[in-house]
Amino acid sequence: MRLSSMFVPTRKEDPAEAEVVSHQLLVRGGYIRMLARGIYDFLPLGWRSVRKIEQIVREEMDRAGAQEVHMPAVQPAELWQESGRWVEYGAELLRFRDRKGAEFCMGPTHEEVVTDMIRGDVKSYKQLPLNLYQIQTKFRDETRPRFGLMRGREFVMKDAYSFDVDEAGALKSYDTMFDAYHRIFQRLGFEYRAVEADTGNIGGSRSHEFQVLAETGEDEIVSCTECGYAANVEKAEIRVEIAEAGEPSGSELATLRTPKARTIEEVSNYLKRGPELIVKTLVYMADETPVMVLMRGDHQVNEIKLKAYLNGELQREVQDLRLASDSEVEEITKAPVGFAGPVGVEGVEIFADLAVEPMVDFIVGANLKDKHHVNVNHGRDFEVKAFVDLRQAGAGDICGRCGGVLEAHRGIEVGHVFFLGDKYSRAMNANVLDEAGEHKPMQMGCYGIGVTRILAAVIEQNHDENGIIWPMAIAPYQVVICPLHLKNELVVSESERIYSELKAAGIEVMLDDRDLRAGNKFKDADLIGIPVRITLGGRGVENGEVELKLRSEDEQTLVALGDIVDRVKVLVAEALVGARGER
Amino acid sequence: MRLSSMFVPTRKEDPAEAEVVSHQLLVRGGYIRMLARGIYDFLPLGWRSVRKIEQIVREEMDRAGAQEVHMPAVQPAELWQESGRWVEYGAELLRFRDRKGAEFCMGPTHEEVVTDMIRGDVKSYKQLPLNLYQIQTKFRDETRPRFGLMRGREFVMKDAYSFDVDEAGALKSYDTMFDAYHRIFQRLGFEYRAVEADTGNIGGSRSHEFQVLAETGEDEIVSCTECGYAANVEKAEIRVEIAEAGEPSGSELATLRTPKARTIEEVSNYLKRGPELIVKTLVYMADETPVMVLMRGDHQVNEIKLKAYLNGELQREVQDLRLASDSEVEEITKAPVGFAGPVGVEGVEIFADLAVEPMVDFIVGANLKDKHHVNVNHGRDFEVKAFVDLRQAGAGDICGRCGGVLEAHRGIEVGHVFFLGDKYSRAMNANVLDEAGEHKPMQMGCYGIGVTRILAAVIEQNHDENGIIWPMAIAPYQVVICPLHLKNELVVSESERIYSELKAAGIEVMLDDRDLRAGNKFKDADLIGIPVRITLGGRGVENGEVELKLRSEDEQTLVALGDIVDRVKVLVAEALVGARGER
Repeated sequence: MRLSSMFVPTRKEDPAEAEVVSHQLLVRGGYIRMLARGIYDFLPLGWRSVRKIEQIVREEMDRAGAQEVHMPAVQPAELWQESGRWVEYGAELLRFRDRKGAEFCMGPTHEEVVTDMIRGDVKSYKQLPLNLYQIQTKFRDETRPRFGLMRGREFVMKDAYSFDVDEAGALKSYDTMFDAYHRIFQRLGFEYRAVEADTGNIGGSRSHEFQVLAETGEDEIVSCTECGYAANVEKAEIRVEIAEAGEPSGSELATLRTPKARTIEEVSNYLKRGPELIVKTLVYMADETPVMVLMRGDHQVNEIKLKAYLNGELQREVQDLRLASDSEVEEITKAPVGFAGPVGVEGVEIFADLAVEPMVDFIVGANLKDKHHVNVNHGRDFEVKAFVDLRQAGAGDICGRCGGVLEAHRGIEVGHVFFLGDKYSRAMNANVLDEAGEHKPMQMGCYGIGVTRILAAVIEQNHDENGIIWPMAIAPYQVVICPLHLKNELVVSESERIYSELKAAGIEVMLDDRDLRAGNKFKDADLIGIPVRITLGGRGVENGEVELKLRSEDEQTLVALGDIVDRVKVLVAEALVGARGER
Repeated sequence: MRLSSMFVPTRKEDPAEAEVVSHQLLVRGGYIRMLARGIYDFLPLGWRSVRKIEQIVREEMDRAGAQEVHMPAVQPAELWQESGRWVEYGAELLRFRDRKGAEFCMGPTHEEVVTDMIRGDVKSYKQLPLNLYQIQTKFRDETRPRFGLMRGREFVMKDAYSFDVDEAGALKSYDTMFDAYHRIFQRLGFEYRAVEADTGNIGGSRSHEFQVLAETGEDEIVSCTECGYAANVEKAEIRVEIAEAGEPSGSELATLRTPKARTIEEVSNYLKRGPELIVKTLVYMADETPVMVLMRGDHQVNEIKLKAYLNGELQREVQDLRLASDSEVEEITKAPVGFAGPVGVEGVEIFADLAVEPMVDFIVGANLKDKHHVNVNHGRDFEVKAFVDLRQAGAGDICGRCGGVLEAHRGIEVGHVFFLGDKYSRAMNANVLDEAGEHKPMQMGCYGIGVTRILAAVIEQNHDENGIIWPMAIAPYQVVICPLHLKNELVVSESERIYSELKAAGIEVMLDDRDLRAGNKFKDADLIGIPVRITLGGRGVENGEVELKLRSEDEQTLVALGDIVDRVKVLVAEALVGARGER
């Protein structure tokens, strides 16, 4: 298409609210505009790329035997009440009433709707397996939408749901989706990891996240350099090597002034002792019961492990585990936040991480303002109810699978696969007759891909200081032609010829026919990120040559006017073959 | 795809709530399922056909130079307040608050959003014209959703918006869309009319509806058999020929008992006088002022003409014109509804249609329960303030353009084009600099197509007692292969061969590999409406033959096994070429 008649409003300035590069470049490149917090318009270039992502996802879902459907965005409350999530889901679920007063929500996900859709018609194992997917607009009323398309409120998602007669079938469906997701993210050209993940509030028991590696990612993941094991830090299994217990010096517990030193770092600096010699005290509320947790100063607590321990070994059935508020900490420890410690505390159970067990003569908060205890020893100065593995994985930890060393990354979650079991089918009476003639709830899986989030994730991985560098498969246009002298008839006629020949060959071409200076055309082409640029200057064309430049490379080459169309056709075709996974 | 692994839940019974054939067949054929009143799931077959309709619309929009965008479904109240429609729009606009209490609505249309989207970036006439469109899910909270996809609450719509610097440009954009719409509806194979329409509450001054002719249509339209002029009855121009005034007989006004005769038909039957001899009295409320309107008994009042007359010639600026309620009628006429008349009424202005002017010795309600007056004459028995053309067009009326005769049809509105002028751009300050350097609000047009409604409209025009008869261009699959004897190896192997050869040729094929009897397979194939059916029976295949049957024809033909693939390829290709408008 001719740029002069397109709506591609590029801008020079980053939008004030944009904290990450994808958000900045999507706005500056004329791909998106903000309508409201976390709600965006997709302009022509942006929507073209989204549709290309959709198409890659669709092709691989179809190839995996899934069938495309379309479910409504507006969902009746009754279904969510059947599954129990009308209450469980929290404020992210946007609820409202229609003109007759009936309750509805904007669908953030479709487990209830898809289960309802098939339960009236699927009655026998012979109709299974089924995998139904849609590519559809979702709404989640995030408290803090941010990073542009990375965490929006309204977004496009591919969501798929599998139905099987038994768990073995469901796990096979899971594996089929797992493989399809690998093909999708490979075709999108991502550097990514499939990581084992916590199952959160969707429920179920087996789950992988597909994480695109990027510094701006909101998720922390670790992966093993040896065996390839990768997991969300909250879920990662690490091998905890317990050091030999030290020998206490016998010094008595003492109390030191540590004015305004509340964090481990501040205490460490003030007392000139390493964080590994300090024990961090955290107060949690397990529902309404306070619990004290001790960690080595340089370690982080993994709340999922803590909750699992309380629920599992102690059978507490904790629904809600959270850090105590400042006032709760003060009430329990009688000291301001930052000075909590285990010594002398009453009526609160104390749990400690395994790494605290061998520590001796350590430092803890004194439960007094601006004071810490030193020469502290558990057993002598306070009692620990149990030593448990509560540590969150990090770089340098030992892989729980193979003993290798873990690397830490930040990731953008672009896909998620879940084995759900019968959580929804049981609650909603979605039963089938199995081969033995018995009624059983179907076994389900659910599989999401954040289509519009992918647009941002691609940019996080593919950009430079001048703009976006699109992979060929999802560039809004594959080629941009820049005629530099619009008054030179040969430049114009050759531009037009190349433009129409490439279009006739099925290549997506932009012709920058705007009356702008070369520098401005190049700036826009780089910002927008079109993979192939053909430049026609007056002198070059008179010498029978054009300049060919790839967005991903610095150098440009001169190509004969007669060769340029074939050269570009080959370039584009090769890049696309790679992206279709046919190479 | 193999039917055994597809989700195509056909049913034998019509759903109780389905009043029209498209709704019945979409449910029975396994195309849609109801989620809530006016809200539907699209199952795999249904969504395939919707996507084909989308693609035809997209191709023609692109060909017409429009650019695809995507705007959010959830829209902030502020924009609707700017345009004034937050108040104007009424209860069809689904309004709600987000978790922070900010007001939003589910977009039923996107004039405000698109105007907001471009006003920050489009500042000069040089950036115009622009035409931006999307294919997107809309929500309108209809009081009475019905007829399945014909009047749903959530539905897919293509909406486009054009922006020009002046009215001449905007009308050119309008004409371009008008032509594109003709191409779209021709490709869809519709029998339809482009009719002049009222502009309703979107505003603007020029408007056409594209009406698919069908008995179940909700709209009444007339078209001229001579000149092709077509219009919504509310808007249709007719030539009103005023008869010679009759000669009053001189008989005195008399009052007759007409027990329980309230309607024109009842009075006509009771008094044995034709409806053309009776004058119908209607009481309207023009905002809060009552107005009495007299029509010949066999004519209908056109409320748009009435409102235009009151606003135009009388300059009343009536906002809301409605029929008076029963209690209002009783208060004004002192008689129960059904016996209102103009004689002796005080304090109410009386307007009469032109056709009443020549009438003499007619019948009117007597403003007394169960009584009518006869031998009534205006001028003698009551005064008419003005005789005005207030009649709604109908079959047999004279075309206002050429003097031909009008036919009446019922229509399903599948498309609508509007010239909006500066209604939104002025309210929302969307100005550009024109060539003379002056700031001017852009001139807009808006253009809608009901994508999911088209699915229903196609079926209303293409079905028989056995099911749907899809046009090739939007059939979910083009061909169905029915092997009848699954234990006959030759039947199975030949079915598989034909299946894979057709698929390899890019044809969309269903293989009915279910272990069902021939009758059941045929019933489903007919119900679903696949255009081409290939049947492989045991004896036929052993004789080297298969049966080829078109859904649109009764007869089937025998085709040699070696010829069937080529024969079907040609059949499908020819049907598709026609539908691309390339014939």
